[in-house]
Amino acid sequence: MLTRIDHVGIAVASLTETIPIYEQAFNLKCVHQETNERQGVREAMLLVHSGDTGGSYVQLLEPIRDDTPVGKFLAKRGPGIHHIAYGVDDIDAALASLTVGGFDLVNKTPVHGTSGSRIAFIHPKGLGGVLTELVEAAAGH
Amino acid sequence: MLTRIDHVGIAVASLTETIPIYEQAFNLKCVHQETNERQGVREAMLLVHSGDTGGSYVQLLEPIRDDTPVGKFLAKRGPGIHHIAYGVDDIDAALASLTVGGFDLVNKTPVHGTSGSRIAFIHPKGLGGVLTELVEAAAGH
Repeated sequence: MLTRIDHVGIAVASLTETIPIYEQAFNLKCVHQETNERQGVREAMLLVHSGDTGGSYVQLLEPIRDDTPVGKFLAKRGPGIHHIAYGVDDIDAALASLTVGGFDLVNKTPVHGTSGSRIAFIHPKGLGGVLTELVEAAAGH
Repeated sequence: MLTRIDHVGIAVASLTETIPIYEQAFNLKCVHQETNERQGVREAMLLVHSGDTGGSYVQLLEPIRDDTPVGKFLAKRGPGIHHIAYGVDDIDAALASLTVGGFDLVNKTPVHGTSGSRIAFIHPKGLGGVLTELVEAAAGH
């Protein structure tokens, strides 16, 4: 079902401050930035590795307001890992399988993700406290 | 410097309870288990993807005692993502580069990791609150 670790999502107070740190520490390049109003974040994608099943990224997430999920996470826990995302070839099939298995989906149908991808979050409670995202990349990504 | 996302390390109360959940949810297979006395954990590695630069895994971590780092993490935060680990070809060169960059290393020289790998942790404070591990896989892994 899973084709790769697509990204690790890290909540930060400031993209401007954190992007250069990750670039310098690990010689990563920031290859994409966008704002996702629905998720309430500004995102920066730093490419770790471009593999045979797609890219793996560090995703830095800056909340656009305090009353967003990432804003509340930052207020409660401070900066740190917010979620983990796995690549899938067919997100509809994956969500159907998880539903049959009794897993609690945050998004019962896919929503808009980074770079035109289709994504869905799975509730952390059934997965050892880990907020988990599935990503079906857009064609050409 | 980084060759892949090697694994995401997830702190759990019980491997016995959590391994089947991840196997069922994502059709993963638990390919390795070991106890690392130095790190104070029992580990289970579930293979996400075997790529051109090595494997990517979900690593489940059960503390062997309450007074271990993962035991304290569980007591404070409950189960969840504990750290992120990146693959490197040359961990000595990576640590030298990070030292020059002023990053705070938990392990100034590599220590024993999963499956005979050489690993080192980098302090979360300089990396957006993320406890970060570098992994140089053993030959043949």
